Amino acid sequence: MSKVTLRNSIREIPDFPIPGILFYDVTTMFKDAAVLQELSDTLYAMYKDKGITKVVGIESRGFIMGPILATRLGAGFVPIRKPGKLPAQTIEESYTKEYGTDTIQMHQDALSSNDVVLLHDDLLATGGTMLAACKLVQQMNPQKLFVNFIIELEALQGRQAFKEVEIASVLTL
Amino acid sequence: MSKVTLRNSIREIPDFPIPGILFYDVTTMFKDAAVLQELSDTLYAMYKDKGITKVVGIESRGFIMGPILATRLGAGFVPIRKPGKLPAQTIEESYTKEYGTDTIQMHQDALSSNDVVLLHDDLLATGGTMLAACKLVQQMNPQKLFVNFIIELEALQGRQAFKEVEIASVLTL
Repeated sequence: MSKVTLRNSIREIPDFPIPGILFYDVTTMFKDAAVLQELSDTLYAMYKDKGITKVVGIESRGFIMGPILATRLGAGFVPIRKPGKLPAQTIEESYTKEYGTDTIQMHQDALSSNDVVLLHDDLLATGGTMLAACKLVQQMNPQKLFVNFIIELEALQGRQAFKEVEIASVLTL
Repeated sequence: MSKVTLRNSIREIPDFPIPGILFYDVTTMFKDAAVLQELSDTLYAMYKDKGITKVVGIESRGFIMGPILATRLGAGFVPIRKPGKLPAQTIEESYTKEYGTDTIQMHQDALSSNDVVLLHDDLLATGGTMLAACKLVQQMNPQKLFVNFIIELEALQGRQAFKEVEIASVLTL
């Protein structure tokens, strides 16, 4: 299996969620046991030597490969969620979207300054959510922060918004 | 490590999300690398001989251990999500809650009648969501259906709502 196989396992859905958007559906990667294993192996190979102690995933699609990668790396898993979902004391970041603002939260005691953190989500478009997630994680002053996506949409140049973090994607489209 | 350690890693939060409810916070299990590994090993031991081909997880907390278990078992992972989140053609089930109704969806092509399915969520309370999830999966007429939780709240007797499926939990509280 290869990156070509991974690429071919993504389902493209025109006009979702709104007209004019081509949506990359990663559920077709996850449901195929061999592709899921290949994706897990590929991500593990990218991060196995980085000393990562916590994988942080962004709700909800970042919850799929994030936990898999955490167990592969011998790290813990930490969720970033929408407001009101996490039951203990949280820290939060708000960010501007095309219409209005969104807020994301993380438990205040989820990370420490000793952690080496890998932040994971499924797809990098303009990067607004991930940038807020980086700020959220950096409130805890970790040793180092890595950022990872399954798919990066190169034309949107979302990567340029990130400074002082190592970004990597499995596939660039 | 043992079930006592797993039990002790759950954080109890009184009056969340509403007064009078004692909320069992599993994020404290996931963030601890050793506990996450133990939970993964325990779930794997429960299902390794069942011939499972797909693990189905319920959004969002069922997305954490569901994918881990899928890769451990050599199975695919399938998400059940809230309406409007899955981009391709879906099937759905609605169910009654204390106030109003909720609907859950799954991609129509996510499962086939050849699949042996393990349905996973974090916690069994009254079982309304999982019962709807079972009906959703059974629309695809799988070979066999297993149902799994990390935590089962015994006093609520949610287990009694399920017929013709094998239910198991890691911890009974």
